[in-house]
Amino acid sequence: MKTQVQTTSKKPEGTAICLVSGGMDSCVCAAIAVSRHRETAFLHVNYGQRTERTELEAFQRIAAHYGITKQLTADISYLAEIGGSALTDRRIEVPTTNMENNMIPATYVPFRNTHLIAIAVSWAEVIGAGYIYIGATEVDNSGYPDCRAAYFKAFNRLIQAGTRPETRIEIITPLLHMTKREVVLTGIQLQAPLHLTWSCYKNEKLACGRCDSCRLRLKGFEEAGVKDPIPYE
Amino acid sequence: MKTQVQTTSKKPEGTAICLVSGGMDSCVCAAIAVSRHRETAFLHVNYGQRTERTELEAFQRIAAHYGITKQLTADISYLAEIGGSALTDRRIEVPTTNMENNMIPATYVPFRNTHLIAIAVSWAEVIGAGYIYIGATEVDNSGYPDCRAAYFKAFNRLIQAGTRPETRIEIITPLLHMTKREVVLTGIQLQAPLHLTWSCYKNEKLACGRCDSCRLRLKGFEEAGVKDPIPYE
Repeated sequence: MKTQVQTTSKKPEGTAICLVSGGMDSCVCAAIAVSRHRETAFLHVNYGQRTERTELEAFQRIAAHYGITKQLTADISYLAEIGGSALTDRRIEVPTTNMENNMIPATYVPFRNTHLIAIAVSWAEVIGAGYIYIGATEVDNSGYPDCRAAYFKAFNRLIQAGTRPETRIEIITPLLHMTKREVVLTGIQLQAPLHLTWSCYKNEKLACGRCDSCRLRLKGFEEAGVKDPIPYE
Repeated sequence: MKTQVQTTSKKPEGTAICLVSGGMDSCVCAAIAVSRHRETAFLHVNYGQRTERTELEAFQRIAAHYGITKQLTADISYLAEIGGSALTDRRIEVPTTNMENNMIPATYVPFRNTHLIAIAVSWAEVIGAGYIYIGATEVDNSGYPDCRAAYFKAFNRLIQAGTRPETRIEIITPLLHMTKREVVLTGIQLQAPLHLTWSCYKNEKLACGRCDSCRLRLKGFEEAGVKDPIPYE
Protein backbone atom coordinates (compact mmCIF):
# COMPACT_ATOMS: atom_id res chain seq x y z
CA MET A 1 0.00 0.00 0.00
CA LYS A 2 1.19 3.47 -0.83
CA THR A 3 -0.11 6.58 0.92
CA GLN A 4 1.33 9.97 1.71
CA VAL A 5 1.14 9.41 5.44
CA GLN A 6 4.39 9.29 7.38
CA THR A 7 3.87 7.84 10.82
CA THR A 8 7.28 6.64 11.84
CA SER A 9 9.02 10.02 12.00
CA LYS A 10 10.03 11.59 15.30
CA LYS A 11 7.03 13.01 17.13
CA PRO A 12 6.91 16.83 16.84
CA GLU A 13 6.95 19.03 19.90
CA GLY A 14 3.73 20.35 21.34
CA THR A 15 0.09 19.57 21.10
CA ALA A 16 -2.15 18.95 18.12
CA ILE A 17 -5.91 19.45 17.95
CA CYS A 18 -7.89 17.03 15.81
CA LEU A 19 -11.43 17.72 14.62
CA VAL A 20 -13.34 14.49 15.23
CA SER A 21 -16.89 14.28 13.94
CA GLY A 22 -17.17 10.59 14.66
CA GLY A 23 -17.05 9.62 10.97
CA MET A 24 -14.51 7.35 9.33
CA ASP A 25 -12.36 10.10 7.81
CA SER A 26 -12.01 11.97 11.10
CA CYS A 27 -11.18 8.72 12.90
CA VAL A 28 -8.37 7.94 10.46
CA CYS A 29 -7.20 11.55 10.70
CA ALA A 30 -7.15 11.22 14.49
CA ALA A 31 -5.14 7.99 14.20
CA ILE A 32 -2.55 9.89 12.14
CA ALA A 33 -2.42 12.83 14.59
CA VAL A 34 -2.06 10.51 17.60
CA SER A 35 0.73 8.60 15.84
CA ARG A 36 2.66 11.84 15.18
CA HIS A 37 2.19 14.01 18.26
CA ARG A 38 2.99 13.65 21.93
CA GLU A 39 -0.43 15.02 22.85
CA THR A 40 -3.58 15.28 20.76
CA ALA A 41 -6.70 17.15 21.86
CA PHE A 42 -10.05 16.18 20.30
CA LEU A 43 -12.66 18.74 19.20
CA HIS A 44 -16.21 17.77 18.29
CA VAL A 45 -18.67 20.25 16.86
CA ASN A 46 -22.44 19.85 16.93
CA TYR A 47 -23.97 21.91 14.16
CA GLY A 48 -27.54 20.70 14.46
CA GLN A 49 -27.15 17.89 11.96
CA ARG A 50 -29.76 15.10 11.88
CA THR A 51 -27.47 12.38 13.18
CA GLU A 52 -25.66 14.40 15.86
CA ARG A 53 -26.49 12.11 18.80
CA THR A 54 -24.95 9.07 17.09
CA GLU A 55 -21.95 11.09 15.91
CA LEU A 56 -21.31 12.41 19.43
CA GLU A 57 -21.39 8.84 20.78
CA ALA A 58 -18.91 7.79 18.10
CA PHE A 59 -16.67 10.76 19.04
CA GLN A 60 -16.76 9.79 22.71
CA ARG A 61 -15.90 6.16 21.97
CA ILE A 62 -13.00 7.11 19.69
CA ALA A 63 -11.70 9.57 22.31
CA ALA A 64 -11.95 6.85 24.99
CA HIS A 65 -10.16 4.39 22.67
CA TYR A 66 -7.20 6.77 22.43
CA GLY A 67 -7.36 7.89 26.08
CA ILE A 68 -7.71 11.56 25.07
CA THR A 69 -7.87 13.81 28.13
CA LYS A 70 -8.28 17.19 26.41
CA GLN A 71 -11.72 17.18 24.82
CA LEU A 72 -14.03 19.99 23.77
CA THR A 73 -17.53 19.75 22.36
CA ALA A 74 -18.84 22.98 20.86
CA ASP A 75 -22.41 23.71 19.86
CA ILE A 76 -22.97 25.78 16.74
CA SER A 77 -26.57 24.78 16.15
CA TYR A 78 -27.23 28.31 14.85
CA LEU A 79 -26.12 26.74 11.54
CA ALA A 80 -29.34 24.72 11.55
CA GLU A 81 -31.27 27.97 12.05
CA ILE A 82 -29.47 29.51 9.07
CA GLY A 83 -30.45 26.42 7.08
CA GLY A 84 -29.61 25.88 3.43
CA SER A 85 -28.45 22.26 3.78
CA ALA A 86 -30.11 18.85 3.79
CA LEU A 87 -27.92 17.92 6.76
CA THR A 88 -29.49 20.52 9.03
CA ASP A 89 -32.76 21.49 7.34
CA ARG A 90 -35.39 18.76 7.54
CA ARG A 91 -37.35 20.36 4.70
CA ILE A 92 -34.53 19.39 2.28
CA GLU A 93 -34.29 15.68 1.41
CA VAL A 94 -30.94 13.88 1.95
CA PRO A 95 -29.98 12.85 -1.60
CA THR A 96 -29.23 9.23 -2.53
CA THR A 97 -28.63 9.54 -6.25
CA ASN A 98 -26.53 12.57 -7.20
CA MET A 99 -23.19 11.49 -5.82
CA GLU A 100 -21.46 11.04 -9.16
CA ASN A 101 -22.04 14.40 -10.82
CA ASN A 102 -19.94 17.42 -10.02
CA MET A 103 -22.73 19.58 -8.61
CA ILE A 104 -22.42 20.92 -5.09
CA PRO A 105 -24.56 18.45 -3.14
CA ALA A 106 -27.64 19.37 -1.10
CA THR A 107 -25.75 18.18 1.97
CA TYR A 108 -23.30 21.09 1.62
CA VAL A 109 -23.47 23.27 4.73
CA PRO A 110 -22.41 26.75 3.56
CA PHE A 111 -18.88 27.60 4.74
CA ARG A 112 -19.16 24.96 7.46
CA ASN A 113 -15.50 24.08 7.80
CA THR A 114 -14.66 27.71 8.58
CA HIS A 115 -16.74 27.51 11.75
CA LEU A 116 -15.11 24.25 12.81
CA ILE A 117 -11.56 25.42 12.17
CA ALA A 118 -12.18 28.83 13.80
CA ILE A 119 -13.13 27.02 17.02
CA ALA A 120 -10.00 24.89 16.76
CA VAL A 121 -7.81 27.97 16.24
CA SER A 122 -9.26 29.81 19.26
CA TRP A 123 -8.76 26.72 21.39
CA ALA A 124 -5.26 26.19 19.98
CA GLU A 125 -4.25 29.75 20.95
CA VAL A 126 -5.41 29.11 24.52
CA ILE A 127 -3.88 25.63 25.02
CA GLY A 128 -0.79 26.34 22.93
CA ALA A 129 -1.41 23.77 20.20
CA GLY A 130 0.50 24.29 16.96
CA TYR A 131 -1.35 21.93 14.61
CA ILE A 132 -5.00 21.49 13.67
CA TYR A 133 -5.84 18.20 11.96
CA ILE A 134 -8.95 17.92 9.82
CA GLY A 135 -9.90 14.84 7.81
CA ALA A 136 -11.15 16.68 4.72
CA THR A 137 -10.80 14.87 1.41
CA GLU A 138 -10.75 16.59 -1.93
CA VAL A 139 -10.87 13.47 -4.09
CA ASP A 140 -14.29 12.04 -3.27
CA ASN A 141 -15.74 15.33 -2.10
CA SER A 142 -14.86 17.65 -4.95
CA GLY A 143 -18.29 19.24 -4.69
CA TYR A 144 -17.54 20.94 -1.37
CA PRO A 145 -15.75 24.28 -1.85
CA ASP A 146 -14.40 24.22 1.71
CA CYS A 147 -12.64 20.87 1.24
CA ARG A 148 -10.13 22.06 -1.36
CA ALA A 149 -6.40 22.62 -1.00
CA ALA A 150 -6.82 26.29 -2.01
CA TYR A 151 -9.27 26.80 0.85
CA PHE A 152 -6.93 25.39 3.49
CA LYS A 153 -4.03 27.39 2.10
CA ALA A 154 -6.12 30.57 2.38
CA PHE A 155 -7.10 29.59 5.93
CA ASN A 156 -3.48 29.15 6.98
CA ARG A 157 -2.87 32.71 5.76
CA LEU A 158 -5.88 33.94 7.72
CA ILE A 159 -4.52 32.33 10.89
CA GLN A 160 -1.20 34.11 10.41
CA ALA A 161 -2.98 37.43 9.90
CA GLY A 162 -5.55 37.05 12.69
CA THR A 163 -3.67 35.67 15.69
CA ARG A 164 -0.96 36.95 18.05
CA PRO A 165 2.36 37.55 16.26
CA GLU A 166 4.08 34.80 18.24
CA THR A 167 1.34 32.26 17.44
CA ARG A 168 2.21 29.44 15.02
CA ILE A 169 -0.81 27.35 14.15
CA GLU A 170 -1.04 25.29 10.98
CA ILE A 171 -3.93 23.32 9.51
CA ILE A 172 -2.88 19.79 8.53
CA THR A 173 -5.01 17.81 6.07
CA PRO A 174 -3.41 14.34 5.78
CA LEU A 175 -6.38 12.81 3.88
CA LEU A 176 -6.78 15.64 1.37
CA HIS A 177 -5.52 13.75 -1.66
CA MET A 178 -6.57 10.23 -0.60
CA THR A 179 -9.35 8.22 -2.15
CA LYS A 180 -11.77 6.51 0.24
CA ARG A 181 -9.90 3.27 -0.48
CA GLU A 182 -6.67 4.84 0.75
CA VAL A 183 -8.46 6.22 3.82
CA VAL A 184 -9.67 2.71 4.70
CA LEU A 185 -6.23 1.18 4.14
CA THR A 186 -4.52 3.88 6.20
CA GLY A 187 -7.03 3.34 9.00
CA ILE A 188 -6.32 -0.39 9.02
CA GLN A 189 -2.56 0.20 8.88
CA LEU A 190 -2.78 2.46 11.96
CA GLN A 191 -5.30 0.21 13.74
CA ALA A 192 -7.83 3.04 13.83
CA PRO A 193 -11.07 1.95 15.59
CA LEU A 194 -13.20 2.04 12.41
CA HIS A 195 -15.84 -0.15 14.13
CA LEU A 196 -16.60 2.80 16.43
CA THR A 197 -17.24 5.34 13.63
CA TRP A 198 -20.50 6.61 12.15
CA SER A 199 -20.86 8.03 8.64
CA CYS A 200 -24.56 7.79 7.72
CA TYR A 201 -26.30 11.12 7.02
CA LYS A 202 -29.82 9.69 7.48
CA ASN A 203 -30.13 7.16 10.28
CA GLU A 204 -29.03 6.84 13.88
CA LYS A 205 -29.24 3.09 14.63
CA LEU A 206 -28.36 1.10 11.49
CA ALA A 207 -26.56 2.91 8.65
CA CYS A 208 -28.85 3.33 5.62
CA GLY A 209 -26.26 2.26 3.03
CA ARG A 210 -27.85 4.57 0.44
CA CYS A 211 -26.99 8.21 1.29
CA ASP A 212 -23.92 9.84 -0.32
CA SER A 213 -21.86 9.31 2.80
CA CYS A 214 -22.73 5.61 3.20
CA ARG A 215 -22.15 4.93 -0.49
CA LEU A 216 -18.72 6.59 -0.50
CA ARG A 217 -17.75 4.68 2.62
CA LEU A 218 -18.94 1.31 1.30
CA LYS A 219 -17.18 1.95 -2.02
CA GLY A 220 -13.96 2.66 -0.11
CA PHE A 221 -14.17 -0.61 1.83
CA GLU A 222 -15.07 -2.56 -1.31
CA GLU A 223 -12.12 -1.15 -3.26
CA ALA A 224 -9.84 -1.84 -0.30
CA GLY A 225 -11.07 -5.45 -0.26
CA VAL A 226 -12.10 -5.16 3.40
CA LYS A 227 -15.49 -5.67 5.09
CA ASP A 228 -16.97 -2.55 6.74
CA PRO A 229 -17.25 -3.47 10.46
CA ILE A 230 -20.39 -1.38 11.17
CA PRO A 231 -23.95 -2.75 10.72
CA TYR A 232 -26.24 -1.67 7.85
CA GLU A 233 -30.01 -2.04 7.50
CA MET B 1 -15.81 67.07 8.82
CA LYS B 2 -13.84 64.74 6.63
CA THR B 3 -14.30 60.99 6.68
CA GLN B 4 -13.90 58.23 4.13
CA VAL B 5 -17.58 57.33 4.19
CA GLN B 6 -19.59 57.89 1.04
CA THR B 7 -23.29 57.80 1.78
CA THR B 8 -24.86 59.68 -1.10
CA SER B 9 -23.93 57.26 -3.89
CA LYS B 10 -26.54 55.10 -5.63
CA LYS B 11 -27.60 52.21 -3.44
CA PRO B 12 -26.01 48.94 -4.59
CA GLU B 13 -28.15 46.00 -5.60
CA GLY B 14 -28.84 43.23 -3.15
CA THR B 15 -28.71 42.73 0.55
CA ALA B 16 -26.02 43.52 3.09
CA ILE B 17 -25.47 41.85 6.44
CA CYS B 18 -24.19 44.01 9.28
CA LEU B 19 -22.64 42.60 12.43
CA VAL B 20 -24.21 44.55 15.29
CA SER B 21 -22.86 43.94 18.78
CA GLY B 22 -24.81 46.83 20.25
CA GLY B 23 -21.70 48.98 20.74
CA MET B 24 -21.07 52.40 19.25
CA ASP B 25 -18.82 51.25 16.39
CA SER B 26 -21.28 48.62 15.19
CA CYS B 27 -24.13 51.14 15.41
CA VAL B 28 -22.27 53.62 13.21
CA CYS B 29 -21.31 50.78 10.85
CA ALA B 30 -24.99 49.80 10.66
CA ALA B 31 -25.94 53.41 9.90
CA ILE B 32 -23.49 53.34 6.97
CA ALA B 33 -24.79 49.99 5.66
CA VAL B 34 -28.41 51.11 5.92
CA SER B 35 -27.57 54.34 4.08
CA ARG B 36 -25.95 52.40 1.21
CA HIS B 37 -28.08 49.28 0.69
CA ARG B 38 -31.69 48.63 -0.18
CA GLU B 39 -31.88 45.94 2.48
CA THR B 40 -29.67 45.34 5.49
CA ALA B 41 -29.90 42.25 7.71
CA PHE B 42 -28.56 42.46 11.26
CA LEU B 43 -26.51 39.72 12.92
CA HIS B 44 -25.80 39.65 16.65
CA VAL B 45 -23.47 37.11 18.21
CA ASN B 46 -23.46 36.15 21.86
CA TYR B 47 -20.07 34.75 22.80
CA GLY B 48 -20.60 34.47 26.52
CA GLN B 49 -19.23 37.92 27.31
CA ARG B 50 -19.96 39.49 30.72
CA THR B 51 -22.25 42.21 29.40
CA GLU B 52 -24.16 40.14 26.84
CA ARG B 53 -27.66 40.88 28.18
CA THR B 54 -27.17 44.64 27.90
CA GLU B 55 -25.53 44.31 24.46
CA LEU B 56 -28.42 42.19 23.17
CA GLU B 57 -30.91 44.82 24.37
CA ALA B 58 -28.90 47.52 22.59
CA PHE B 59 -28.87 45.37 19.43
CA GLN B 60 -32.65 44.93 19.57
CA ARG B 61 -33.24 48.67 20.06
CA ILE B 62 -30.93 49.61 17.18
CA ALA B 63 -32.62 47.01 14.93
CA ALA B 64 -36.05 48.39 15.90
CA HIS B 65 -34.82 51.94 15.25
CA TYR B 66 -33.94 50.97 11.66
CA GLY B 67 -36.97 48.68 11.18
CA ILE B 68 -34.75 45.70 10.32
CA THR B 69 -36.85 42.64 9.48
CA LYS B 70 -34.05 40.12 8.84
CA GLN B 71 -32.36 39.50 12.19
CA LEU B 72 -30.30 36.59 13.46
CA THR B 73 -28.87 36.06 16.92
CA ALA B 74 -26.27 33.31 17.15
CA ASP B 75 -24.90 31.77 20.33
CA ILE B 76 -21.22 30.83 20.36
CA SER B 77 -20.82 30.68 24.10
CA TYR B 78 -18.37 27.80 23.62
CA LEU B 79 -15.84 30.68 23.34
CA ALA B 80 -16.39 31.34 27.04
CA GLU B 81 -15.62 27.67 27.72
CA ILE B 82 -12.40 27.96 25.71
CA GLY B 83 -11.52 30.99 27.84
CA GLY B 84 -8.36 33.02 27.48
CA SER B 85 -9.99 36.45 27.60
CA ALA B 86 -11.07 38.85 30.31
CA LEU B 87 -14.31 39.40 28.37
CA THR B 88 -15.44 35.81 28.80
CA ASP B 89 -13.36 34.41 31.63
CA ARG B 90 -14.32 35.83 35.03
CA ARG B 91 -11.01 34.71 36.52
CA ILE B 92 -9.24 37.36 34.37
CA GLU B 93 -9.70 40.96 35.48
CA VAL B 94 -11.00 43.52 32.94
CA PRO B 95 -8.10 45.98 32.64
CA THR B 96 -8.52 49.70 33.25
CA THR B 97 -4.96 50.91 32.84
CA ASN B 98 -3.12 49.33 29.91
CA MET B 99 -4.97 50.96 27.05
CA GLU B 100 -2.11 53.06 25.79
CA ASN B 101 0.64 50.52 25.29
CA ASN B 102 0.83 48.31 22.23
CA MET B 103 0.38 44.98 24.00
CA ILE B 104 -2.48 42.72 22.99
CA PRO B 105 -5.03 43.47 25.71
CA ALA B 106 -6.46 40.90 28.14
CA THR B 107 -9.85 41.55 26.58
CA TYR B 108 -8.66 39.99 23.31
CA VAL B 109 -10.81 36.95 22.52
CA PRO B 110 -8.59 34.68 20.42
CA PHE B 111 -9.57 34.75 16.74
CA ARG B 112 -13.03 36.04 17.71
CA ASN B 113 -13.85 37.95 14.56
CA THR B 114 -13.38 34.80 12.47
CA HIS B 115 -16.29 33.17 14.27
CA LEU B 116 -18.51 36.23 13.78
CA ILE B 117 -17.70 36.64 10.09
CA ALA B 118 -18.03 32.89 9.40
CA ILE B 119 -21.61 33.05 10.68
CA ALA B 120 -22.28 36.09 8.50
CA VAL B 121 -20.84 34.32 5.43
CA SER B 122 -22.95 31.18 5.95
CA TRP B 123 -26.05 33.34 6.39
CA ALA B 124 -25.11 35.48 3.38
CA GLU B 125 -24.85 32.38 1.17
CA VAL B 126 -28.35 31.32 2.21
CA ILE B 127 -30.10 34.73 1.93
CA GLY B 128 -28.07 35.88 -1.06
CA ALA B 129 -26.35 38.85 0.60
CA GLY B 130 -23.24 40.16 -1.15
CA TYR B 131 -21.74 42.38 1.55
CA ILE B 132 -20.81 41.84 5.17
CA TYR B 133 -20.29 44.99 7.23
CA ILE B 134 -18.21 44.91 10.39
CA GLY B 135 -17.33 47.95 12.47
CA ALA B 136 -13.74 46.96 13.22
CA THR B 137 -11.27 49.79 13.76
CA GLU B 138 -7.55 49.44 13.36
CA VAL B 139 -6.60 52.88 14.67
CA ASP B 140 -7.68 52.70 18.30
CA ASN B 141 -7.58 48.92 18.47
CA SER B 142 -4.18 48.15 17.06
CA GLY B 143 -3.66 45.47 19.70
CA TYR B 144 -6.23 43.11 18.20
CA PRO B 145 -4.72 40.96 15.41
CA ASP B 146 -8.15 40.27 13.91
CA CYS B 147 -8.95 43.97 13.44
CA ARG B 148 -6.26 44.68 10.86
CA ALA B 149 -6.60 45.34 7.14
CA ALA B 150 -4.37 42.33 6.35
CA TYR B 151 -6.74 40.09 8.27
CA PHE B 152 -9.84 41.23 6.37
CA LYS B 153 -7.99 40.94 3.05
CA ALA B 154 -7.04 37.35 3.93
CA PHE B 155 -10.65 36.66 4.93
CA ASN B 156 -12.01 37.92 1.62
CA ARG B 157 -9.67 35.44 -0.10
CA LEU B 158 -10.90 32.65 2.18
CA ILE B 159 -14.52 33.44 1.22
CA GLN B 160 -13.63 33.20 -2.47
CA ALA B 161 -11.90 29.86 -1.89
CA GLY B 162 -14.51 28.37 0.45
CA THR B 163 -17.91 29.20 -1.04
CA ARG B 164 -19.83 28.20 -4.19
CA PRO B 165 -18.13 29.42 -7.37
CA GLU B 166 -21.03 31.75 -8.18
CA THR B 167 -21.01 33.30 -4.70
CA ARG B 168 -19.75 36.88 -4.38
CA ILE B 169 -19.48 37.98 -0.77
CA GLU B 170 -17.21 40.78 0.37
CA ILE B 171 -16.34 42.02 3.85
CA ILE B 172 -16.70 45.80 4.15
CA THR B 173 -14.93 47.64 6.99
CA PRO B 174 -15.96 51.32 6.71
CA LEU B 175 -14.55 52.27 10.15
CA LEU B 176 -11.20 50.52 9.73
CA HIS B 177 -9.08 53.66 9.40
CA MET B 178 -11.22 56.00 11.51
CA THR B 179 -10.29 57.33 14.92
CA LYS B 180 -12.97 57.18 17.61
CA ARG B 181 -13.52 60.91 17.02
CA GLU B 182 -14.34 60.21 13.36
CA VAL B 183 -16.63 57.35 14.36
CA VAL B 184 -18.58 59.70 16.64
CA LEU B 185 -18.79 62.43 13.97
CA THR B 186 -19.88 59.93 11.30
CA GLY B 187 -22.57 58.60 13.63
CA ILE B 188 -23.89 62.10 14.25
CA GLN B 189 -23.77 62.94 10.53
CA LEU B 190 -25.87 59.83 9.75
CA GLN B 191 -28.16 60.31 12.75
CA ALA B 192 -27.14 56.94 14.15
CA PRO B 193 -28.97 56.17 17.43
CA LEU B 194 -25.86 56.44 19.62
CA HIS B 195 -28.07 56.87 22.72
CA LEU B 196 -29.16 53.23 22.27
CA THR B 197 -25.64 51.76 22.20
CA TRP B 198 -23.64 50.01 24.94
CA SER B 199 -19.84 49.85 25.03
CA CYS B 200 -18.86 49.09 28.63
CA TYR B 201 -16.98 45.81 29.16
CA LYS B 202 -17.69 45.70 32.92
CA ASN B 203 -21.17 46.85 33.85
CA GLU B 204 -24.73 46.27 32.71
CA LYS B 205 -26.69 49.23 34.12
CA LEU B 206 -24.49 52.34 34.20
CA ALA B 207 -21.32 52.35 32.11
CA CYS B 208 -18.19 52.22 34.32
CA GLY B 209 -16.27 54.93 32.44
CA ARG B 210 -12.97 53.25 33.33
CA CYS B 211 -12.57 50.08 31.23
CA ASP B 212 -10.68 50.26 27.90
CA SER B 213 -13.88 50.37 25.93
CA CYS B 214 -15.49 53.18 27.99
CA ARG B 215 -12.30 55.23 27.94
CA LEU B 216 -11.89 54.96 24.15
CA ARG B 217 -15.53 55.90 23.69
CA LEU B 218 -15.37 58.89 26.04
CA LYS B 219 -12.14 60.06 24.40
CA GLY B 220 -13.87 59.90 21.01
CA PHE B 221 -16.80 62.03 22.19
CA GLU B 222 -14.48 64.48 23.92
CA GLU B 223 -12.32 64.94 20.81
CA ALA B 224 -15.46 65.32 18.69
CA GLY B 225 -16.66 68.03 21.09
CA VAL B 226 -19.93 66.18 21.69
CA LYS B 227 -21.50 64.88 24.90
CA ASP B 228 -21.92 61.09 25.14
CA PRO B 229 -25.70 60.53 25.45
CA ILE B 230 -25.47 57.38 27.63
CA PRO B 231 -25.33 57.49 31.45
CA TYR B 232 -22.13 56.74 33.43
CA GLU B 233 -21.73 55.85 37.12
